[in-house]
Amino acid sequence: MADLPNELDTSREEVSHLVERLSLAKEEQQESLFEQAIEQVEPGEIALLLESLPIGDRLERWQQVAQDEQLDVLVAMRAEARGAILRTLPEPTLAALLDRVDAESLIELADDLPVAIVDDAVTRMTARQRNWFEQASQYGDDEVGRYLNHEMVLVPANARAGDALRVLLRSHYPFSDQAYLVDALGLYRGAISLKQLASLPDTQRLKEVPLLDLVPLQATTSVVDATEAVEHSGLAALPVVDTEGRLQGRISLQLALELTREEYESRLMATVGLDEETDLFSPVLQSSKRRALWLGINLLTALLASWVIGRFEATLVQVVSLAVLMPIVASMGGIAGSQTLTLVVRGLAMGQLAQGNLRALLSKEIGVGVLNGIAWSVIIGAVAGLWFGDLATGLVMAAAIIINITVAALAGVLVPVVLDRRGIDPALSGSVVLTTVTDVVGFLTFLGLGSLVLVP
Amino acid sequence: MADLPNELDTSREEVSHLVERLSLAKEEQQESLFEQAIEQVEPGEIALLLESLPIGDRLERWQQVAQDEQLDVLVAMRAEARGAILRTLPEPTLAALLDRVDAESLIELADDLPVAIVDDAVTRMTARQRNWFEQASQYGDDEVGRYLNHEMVLVPANARAGDALRVLLRSHYPFSDQAYLVDALGLYRGAISLKQLASLPDTQRLKEVPLLDLVPLQATTSVVDATEAVEHSGLAALPVVDTEGRLQGRISLQLALELTREEYESRLMATVGLDEETDLFSPVLQSSKRRALWLGINLLTALLASWVIGRFEATLVQVVSLAVLMPIVASMGGIAGSQTLTLVVRGLAMGQLAQGNLRALLSKEIGVGVLNGIAWSVIIGAVAGLWFGDLATGLVMAAAIIINITVAALAGVLVPVVLDRRGIDPALSGSVVLTTVTDVVGFLTFLGLGSLVLVP
Repeated sequence: MADLPNELDTSREEVSHLVERLSLAKEEQQESLFEQAIEQVEPGEIALLLESLPIGDRLERWQQVAQDEQLDVLVAMRAEARGAILRTLPEPTLAALLDRVDAESLIELADDLPVAIVDDAVTRMTARQRNWFEQASQYGDDEVGRYLNHEMVLVPANARAGDALRVLLRSHYPFSDQAYLVDALGLYRGAISLKQLASLPDTQRLKEVPLLDLVPLQATTSVVDATEAVEHSGLAALPVVDTEGRLQGRISLQLALELTREEYESRLMATVGLDEETDLFSPVLQSSKRRALWLGINLLTALLASWVIGRFEATLVQVVSLAVLMPIVASMGGIAGSQTLTLVVRGLAMGQLAQGNLRALLSKEIGVGVLNGIAWSVIIGAVAGLWFGDLATGLVMAAAIIINITVAALAGVLVPVVLDRRGIDPALSGSVVLTTVTDVVGFLTFLGLGSLVLVP
Repeated sequence: MADLPNELDTSREEVSHLVERLSLAKEEQQESLFEQAIEQVEPGEIALLLESLPIGDRLERWQQVAQDEQLDVLVAMRAEARGAILRTLPEPTLAALLDRVDAESLIELADDLPVAIVDDAVTRMTARQRNWFEQASQYGDDEVGRYLNHEMVLVPANARAGDALRVLLRSHYPFSDQAYLVDALGLYRGAISLKQLASLPDTQRLKEVPLLDLVPLQATTSVVDATEAVEHSGLAALPVVDTEGRLQGRISLQLALELTREEYESRLMATVGLDEETDLFSPVLQSSKRRALWLGINLLTALLASWVIGRFEATLVQVVSLAVLMPIVASMGGIAGSQTLTLVVRGLAMGQLAQGNLRALLSKEIGVGVLNGIAWSVIIGAVAGLWFGDLATGLVMAAAIIINITVAALAGVLVPVVLDRRGIDPALSGSVVLTTVTDVVGFLTFLGLGSLVLVP
């Protein structure tokens, strides 16, 4: 027991410690180690731990998770890692697992379950949970309505302060320092804080007092906008309503933090054509298929670049130094362009880029491109000239570097802006398009100039 | 006024709407537009708006920000964008700006201010704020102690419930649904919730009741671990103590969300060698310098790749198709490797990778590499063979693709793991090292095999 993490360890340390010990332990030790471990950690950490195990081990350990925690662990896992477990469970086990599932958990799991199982679970839900589930299912993946929390304290709009206070004090929901007023039709009528209730006379009618100064969010609000709204509200949660003004649930700061993490994880994974749900240990065949698409798209751009090079075969035979040096031109353009691209994608995500400041940004980035282009062209031109003992080679190299780095800056601004306007996610496709531009322009200018100047 | 954003707009929409209108408006319209706008939006949005303006405009608009908001706006801006304003302000203006600065704001600004100005501001602080400032300054950039919130309700450890409740109810701090008990020495003695206080008899001594079940965080805890701890606590904030157990401040979910955003922004920017504080409109010379380092590092790897190609000059002259096709080999390896790298960097960040599961991950990734290598080698080999009408060229291409994609998978796992063990951030340096490997191996295998097989 001395080796097991204590309460003060952070979740990441706990997980990596457990991954370590679990994988190194002998078979029989693993059993008891895992059993001790899962008694001590939260479902979220068991989820991280299961994700970090190869699929065979993962299924075995999963059987050891206490039945009353299995559902929470699954909900906390990434979709692909969870799918590997769900696919092995027979239908009766799945049905039992979903015996008392709530709306939020079922929404998270539904895509990975057979339709019949989901329908069955919905029928067995309480009327209120079924209602939440059906409402949440109407919203898309990027709308906050899909992810709402329903653990909130509701009081009738005509309640008295004393009654509302007692309901709040009895509630065990997290962040229940506010209650929402709803009328008989389920319409949202305002929010009041625990603090305010505690200072009102017991018999005070709530409809006669000033309520919390907040605007409820619309369920169709994008996840990004909703998380920002909670962050800036100064409150622990914001209520969310549908178009008719009916209360749908709420988004707490905790939920906002979780959704923000997922959003950024998606953006990080998108840069290599993967998504946030990708499993560290998904089966080889499945992983290969997932990644093949991105490789295929990249192949097309690489073929285009090769085709450009192919146009200069005759030149390359006569001036082989061009073949040796050409990757440098393409590569420097790619790096310079991706720096601009990353900055612009961030600006777009924050709403900091509009038609109005585009021109100013373009001229600044082109300025940076020209300046860096000149600086590096001198260095690279000198290296190339000395390497091949030929001034003209150095000059061709220098000119191609200036041109490609400048074009890269231009493309680094325009590519994401144009993609964004066409509704294409620039975080996902920006780098492929940009690399195509910098490769093609790089090879074309360098080999083109080389043909003109260097061919004897 | 009809065109100005209303309360329901999200902060991003507001900002991009204002950027748009501000940049398109004529000079005299700008004045009134901006004045109307800043009356309606929060300091955080004014900060985003100022960041999105070219530096000249930014300085002009900054003068229009109401004096009592200027400090909050500066604190909310990214360091580089804020620096552009701070550098233009004369010392007396700076001193006036910091007249009633609190500890958190001064910590954020201190690095961009002259030392004398900071010292002067510290002397003018209240004893308590000075104390918070000095404590926070002791902690590093990645320790939570540096960023703590000090707006929290403290009560003596021997207080009675009624008194503590009254103090909490009177407090206007956000998330003040909990009070911290401290003794005469400032040692943290526990936390109690508003809810619990409201249900206790007025005269109940707090030291005799069970307090909130939480472990305070250490001020030296890393920012990432601290934000996770708050997220999983189910509470709106966690108290933070120093090594002696003195209460240093707290981290609320809101602060955790802000720090999480910054952490991810850093990781996204790190992939192109930039940092989170980079200004969209920093001066051209300054931007160029910042980006030059990354271009220089990349140049070294590109030169290495070129040197490898240079070893095969004789071959290239005889078989020019190798020059045409070689970028495809390097590029496919780079893409395949960066997919693995990104997945592994995420696993490392979450503590999901340890010595124990490294071997399993390696064999899975190599499996994916071999499978994708074989699949793509068939396609690319066929394309190359048909293009140059030569079976041997196709076979050399196919072999090089299999080898490079497999090596890329291996490097995609090992490069970040080794960097991480040596304390080097794999998010920053992983891709450069990986590209070097895939370029060198790609050119070496393809040109090497070509020399052996294709040279007549």
